[in-house]
Amino acid sequence: MKVSGEFYRSIWIDRESGLPRIIDQTRLPHEFVTRLLPDLASVVEAICVMRVRGAPLIGATAAHGLALALAHDASDQSLLGATRELLATRPTAVNLRWALDRVVARVKGLPPSGRAAIARQEAIAICDEDSILCERIGDHGLDILKEIANSKRDQSGPQPLRILTHCNAGWLATVDWGTALAPVYKAHDAGIPVEVWVSETRPRNQGASLTAFELREHGVPHTVIVDSAGGHLMQRGLVDVVLVGSDRTTAKGDVCNKIGTYLKALAAFANEVPFYVCLPCSTIDWSIRDGLAAVPIEERDGEEVRHVRGRSADGKVQTIDLFGGESPAANPAFDITPASLVTGLITEYGVSRATTESLAGLKATLESDQIL
Amino acid sequence: MKVSGEFYRSIWIDRESGLPRIIDQTRLPHEFVTRLLPDLASVVEAICVMRVRGAPLIGATAAHGLALALAHDASDQSLLGATRELLATRPTAVNLRWALDRVVARVKGLPPSGRAAIARQEAIAICDEDSILCERIGDHGLDILKEIANSKRDQSGPQPLRILTHCNAGWLATVDWGTALAPVYKAHDAGIPVEVWVSETRPRNQGASLTAFELREHGVPHTVIVDSAGGHLMQRGLVDVVLVGSDRTTAKGDVCNKIGTYLKALAAFANEVPFYVCLPCSTIDWSIRDGLAAVPIEERDGEEVRHVRGRSADGKVQTIDLFGGESPAANPAFDITPASLVTGLITEYGVSRATTESLAGLKATLESDQIL
Repeated sequence: MKVSGEFYRSIWIDRESGLPRIIDQTRLPHEFVTRLLPDLASVVEAICVMRVRGAPLIGATAAHGLALALAHDASDQSLLGATRELLATRPTAVNLRWALDRVVARVKGLPPSGRAAIARQEAIAICDEDSILCERIGDHGLDILKEIANSKRDQSGPQPLRILTHCNAGWLATVDWGTALAPVYKAHDAGIPVEVWVSETRPRNQGASLTAFELREHGVPHTVIVDSAGGHLMQRGLVDVVLVGSDRTTAKGDVCNKIGTYLKALAAFANEVPFYVCLPCSTIDWSIRDGLAAVPIEERDGEEVRHVRGRSADGKVQTIDLFGGESPAANPAFDITPASLVTGLITEYGVSRATTESLAGLKATLESDQIL
Repeated sequence: MKVSGEFYRSIWIDRESGLPRIIDQTRLPHEFVTRLLPDLASVVEAICVMRVRGAPLIGATAAHGLALALAHDASDQSLLGATRELLATRPTAVNLRWALDRVVARVKGLPPSGRAAIARQEAIAICDEDSILCERIGDHGLDILKEIANSKRDQSGPQPLRILTHCNAGWLATVDWGTALAPVYKAHDAGIPVEVWVSETRPRNQGASLTAFELREHGVPHTVIVDSAGGHLMQRGLVDVVLVGSDRTTAKGDVCNKIGTYLKALAAFANEVPFYVCLPCSTIDWSIRDGLAAVPIEERDGEEVRHVRGRSADGKVQTIDLFGGESPAANPAFDITPASLVTGLITEYGVSRATTESLAGLKATLESDQIL
């Protein structure tokens, strides 16, 4: 998608060095800075401090991390150690494991001397495929948005379609297109007037910093709101559809996503607003059913709640303290939206219902396509 | 309640000047600064920019504003003009009108020369009574907390009672004690172990800045969370009761309160967590039934979403920009929690259910006490 009129991906191979290069998302929206990832340590650090974030991009970056580790030391021990280290960076996202498993499966039978090149190839393939998958999610989501826009036009004449999203599930969370924002970009590019409510997403403000940045740079109309305002807007009929991403979805359709998603889902359900989750199939964890019981919720440092980063009037980017005293903070990073609150799951394969039966059908398709 | 070990109210009469003095809440928690209110203009400004906020304190401060206007010019025209100007400061809180009506009723039959002194007396009486009412709310709320603590002890042994609150409905929102925090202070002072989840309350962070400040200064254990985390905590069984305040409650028990209250109420209902609203009867608007249709929701400046104030590492208090570009923001300040989600309304008269019938009973009591 576009930044200052130029097309970008969130991770790509640097022409000069041949190394992966990322957009440092901790510097956005105030500074647009890219960064080389020369080795495993730089990848681990980038994932941990969230220079890259978003389940699909975490997986893609971790795959490159494994390739970089093998370029340095291609032994079995290095392969195992690097995999473990990368897996430990973020406990919630499931396609981190999926991406690592995929690279490991490709290289573990090879002699060490051949591993690094194949791992790099596989990491690049994961990135390219992610872009294609996300575009497909966009196409399937577009069908749904068109339907909602049509039924709305019948009722109230031509008005923009009002979409609420939470956190950043845009192209910065994936390699390109995004998950929840892919249908939005598709609709915008197709000339359907859209207006996006961007939930700021405390504590790290990925909505206000990343989603607003993406939409602004791509020219999509949007309005930032605080996370608490979503319910009010739905109550007042000001939201036509909610689109969010997912870090991990269970076999019965429970959705683990950024903290606050659950509250939006409750409000959508109470106000009969369709609530769709957009995700690549690699983020489905087929091994578990009950999200509340089985998905580990990352508890991040309370300092993220206490400190906020932004630009002061003198132009300097700085971090300020909100509490003014020694109050402790808790910082659960994700929550679980029960399947019963989810209208549908939009994947690269189309729309599934958030039920064991519907997802079993999707699984059968993936198996027959030899993807699972 | 206590600040640095000394007892304070949120508004009091300055000994030297005889003028009302307030704690400038826009400077908290980073600076504790008090401020004289010498005239009507200073009162209007203090309410508009939220140096004082919280429905009960707004009413009490406005009453002093009217007295100050009359001290300057006691004519009918001045009385009418000042009342109008004060009423226009904040459209949602209903006891702003109640407090002004009360002062006007006391002075309008008097000759202008006698008005200022009586108005001042009435404003002081409103403040003193508010403190007593809030303490009563605290006593009634304490009974409920004791009950919950007892049933909890039966199940899981002695553990702190975990109370979630939103925004600031503490002594800084009233004259003393607070509404939602009054039962918390009563419980803490009675030796019942409590632990308060403080929802930060974007965009103005009254939770992180004011509620955390209050609890810290008074020594009550608490933990700050982002607004989005409330649902997750309730889902995990980590909240025993929700206590919030109210800016306006309708005759059938719909509750207008700080934006985000509705989302917490939805989560409490979904997870069978008791949800109590604490309010003085002066915040009940008996003239309306349907909150969603009839309560005006103040739309504040989007700049409040874009800008955050805090202390940077060099010790300076500053305001930073979160968006890094020209994205618009919407900023509805309140939302409506439907009566059906409210477990009970705790007033100075005890606990009412959020139903037309139960509230009609309360109204009859108020009428027989000649309060209505």
